[in-house]
Amino acid sequence: MPGMAGYDWITFTSDYGLEDHFVGVCHGVIARVAPGARVLDVSHAVGAQDVRQGARVLAEAVPYLPRAVHLAVVDPEVGTGRGMVAVEAAGQVLVGPDNGLLVWAAEALGGVGRVVALENPAYRLTTVSRTFHGRDVFAPAAAHVAAGVDPGELGPEVDPARLVRLERPAARVDGERVLASVVAVDHFGNLALDLRPEDLEGTGVAAGDAVEVRAGGRAHRVVVAETFASVAAGELVLHEDSFGSLALAVNQGRAAGRVGAVVGDPVEIALKPGRA
Amino acid sequence: MPGMAGYDWITFTSDYGLEDHFVGVCHGVIARVAPGARVLDVSHAVGAQDVRQGARVLAEAVPYLPRAVHLAVVDPEVGTGRGMVAVEAAGQVLVGPDNGLLVWAAEALGGVGRVVALENPAYRLTTVSRTFHGRDVFAPAAAHVAAGVDPGELGPEVDPARLVRLERPAARVDGERVLASVVAVDHFGNLALDLRPEDLEGTGVAAGDAVEVRAGGRAHRVVVAETFASVAAGELVLHEDSFGSLALAVNQGRAAGRVGAVVGDPVEIALKPGRA
Amino acid sequence: MPGMAGYDWITFTSDYGLEDHFVGVCHGVIARVAPGARVLDVSHAVGAQDVRQGARVLAEAVPYLPRAVHLAVVDPEVGTGRGMVAVEAAGQVLVGPDNGLLVWAAEALGGVGRVVALENPAYRLTTVSRTFHGRDVFAPAAAHVAAGVDPGELGPEVDPARLVRLERPAARVDGERVLASVVAVDHFGNLALDLRPEDLEGTGVAAGDAVEVRAGGRAHRVVVAETFASVAAGELVLHEDSFGSLALAVNQGRAAGRVGAVVGDPVEIALKPGRA
Repeated sequence: MPGMAGYDWITFTSDYGLEDHFVGVCHGVIARVAPGARVLDVSHAVGAQDVRQGARVLAEAVPYLPRAVHLAVVDPEVGTGRGMVAVEAAGQVLVGPDNGLLVWAAEALGGVGRVVALENPAYRLTTVSRTFHGRDVFAPAAAHVAAGVDPGELGPEVDPARLVRLERPAARVDGERVLASVVAVDHFGNLALDLRPEDLEGTGVAAGDAVEVRAGGRAHRVVVAETFASVAAGELVLHEDSFGSLALAVNQGRAAGRVGAVVGDPVEIALKPGRA
Repeated sequence: MPGMAGYDWITFTSDYGLEDHFVGVCHGVIARVAPGARVLDVSHAVGAQDVRQGARVLAEAVPYLPRAVHLAVVDPEVGTGRGMVAVEAAGQVLVGPDNGLLVWAAEALGGVGRVVALENPAYRLTTVSRTFHGRDVFAPAAAHVAAGVDPGELGPEVDPARLVRLERPAARVDGERVLASVVAVDHFGNLALDLRPEDLEGTGVAAGDAVEVRAGGRAHRVVVAETFASVAAGELVLHEDSFGSLALAVNQGRAAGRVGAVVGDPVEIALKPGRA
Repeated sequence: MPGMAGYDWITFTSDYGLEDHFVGVCHGVIARVAPGARVLDVSHAVGAQDVRQGARVLAEAVPYLPRAVHLAVVDPEVGTGRGMVAVEAAGQVLVGPDNGLLVWAAEALGGVGRVVALENPAYRLTTVSRTFHGRDVFAPAAAHVAAGVDPGELGPEVDPARLVRLERPAARVDGERVLASVVAVDHFGNLALDLRPEDLEGTGVAAGDAVEVRAGGRAHRVVVAETFASVAAGELVLHEDSFGSLALAVNQGRAAGRVGAVVGDPVEIALKPGRA
């Protein structure tokens, strides 16, 4: 009987997009294995094969998600020898490829616990394709765990220290400037940086200052403020976004278009602020 | 115990798009507060910060939705002093910003009833960000109401007469012409106008007529007909769409591309029809 | 009492896109008729009015979906005299327009069984528009069947031999070459062909060969391999995709962009392979 031992929820994060039937087919596989589980789609618009973005999205989301099996698939190495794992973390389970996708979320939940390799054919589809392991391996594994199968049944244990880990982005701050980079551009054109408010402590930059920001090949005057609504319409602002990152935004506009920057671009902030 | 006093369904309409995890995270917040509620996504593709389009989408949808708490977030003034409200209407509840987004839907349901301001911190997340009130205020409020909390617990009552209201679009008809505008362009390229069939009563225009329509800077010959399939492939037609608006369409084509018009553009219909 | 006689699941496939509230409104109609049913969205990104693509998506998906009423709407002839049907297949039911959309899926499930025309007004919305039969006819019919109504109640039986059927795409193989065409381009830029591995049996082409492929107006060297990860990054590969079609892919790249081909384009494969 699922429920006691299993999970009511499966969350699902991928780079499958919504143009195809990939997501719907995975929902189907889950429904056949775990008809009582409910699936919560976190995002299927992770950039194609962008493991780093997927890891960031999942880690930002998990604090707001219910207790669940978290299925995540961004898998550029599908069909090679890369590992496939279930990772326990604080009483929850993450399922996906062993390429770093799951680790930041596991750490956000409380830390990586037991790790198992998804090798038991009893918890895969009968036929496993070479390119769609989301359908054939990961979704069935997540659904079986939700239905009450102990993750230890999925395959042999793996040393957690051997999980593939991604380097965390980290801005560099020296006496004169901050060298950051764009880690995400959202639907509203806001540019999240690999920078948190605490990184600016001791630099002398404070709310109300105007700083010079070099990005997209040009210098911009940017006001440091609590939120984009703190500045006039059309003005650039550097503020803490809703997931705790410092971000460039334009009040009632799109910073991405204004600055002409994309994910990965460098952003340099001069530490000689004046009052805005 | 949810169920008796609460709502089985929460519907969700926003301009969050599906490129990010914003919608998924709100689903997560709802699942944690009201695990028994089911969420029905109406649309998350309302134009960014387009309150008027959001109001129209929600008002068109509610007659077809189950009895629910209707969560709606299109919120360009997030982080300013704009109000946040729950609006009762005919035994249902709408939750969102006080910027006009909810009022047309409340009227479609039967009229604005009790209104409360979402000020009780017990029904928000512990930390409220400055830019993501969908996650931190609106979704928790909607979920608590679905789980059985009386809307009166969410905060103090607000005079319904003080709700922000949007001006309704309205075409002008005089003896010689109709001055309308495009209020929506759909996935199939159909152009909905701020004009209903009853607006043409008494003008002498009837099904089967051909009228001259000026839009996108040019004049077009358009047949007035019951549906786009009434005209030959590739022909422009003015017909009543499935939500009761008059709309320009092209049989087996896209009127938006043909006419070159976008939301807000004027459309002028000459009232000197001839037989098609 | 639904459940015994009905279906727990309704799957939903359409060309409605996600820019509008069309899909959400259909979910609402289903929730009002069959509150106990769960809706599984297969895809709403079928090309606008592309019946053939819709038929392919649904037929590929059904083997992975739970026992369900399968609602599908790609309906370029809405508002004309085209038929509207429910098709039984191996204990499941498909609901949609009679334009070929449902037949391949019915055959994938086990073959077309009883067919009925959706003519009983008791199982439609009270008002039926001329252009949105998904909301007004198909979703209510699917929901009533899920809630326990026998399909025979929906209207008179139709001779299954009179269902509209689509011609199946089929590549032609002669002694020197294969003439195929692109039947789908997915989110990752892979080009699926109307060609299956068994079509190449007896041609002498085998894994590890390099063949010349003419597509998009140019000749390309393509390696025949088990999966895209079998070739170097950036190389073109011809492999069996996860739904059993041969497909052109680029390891860590997008074949659609490289080749410059779209759905319907011819692809010619020369049968004079050499070792890769």
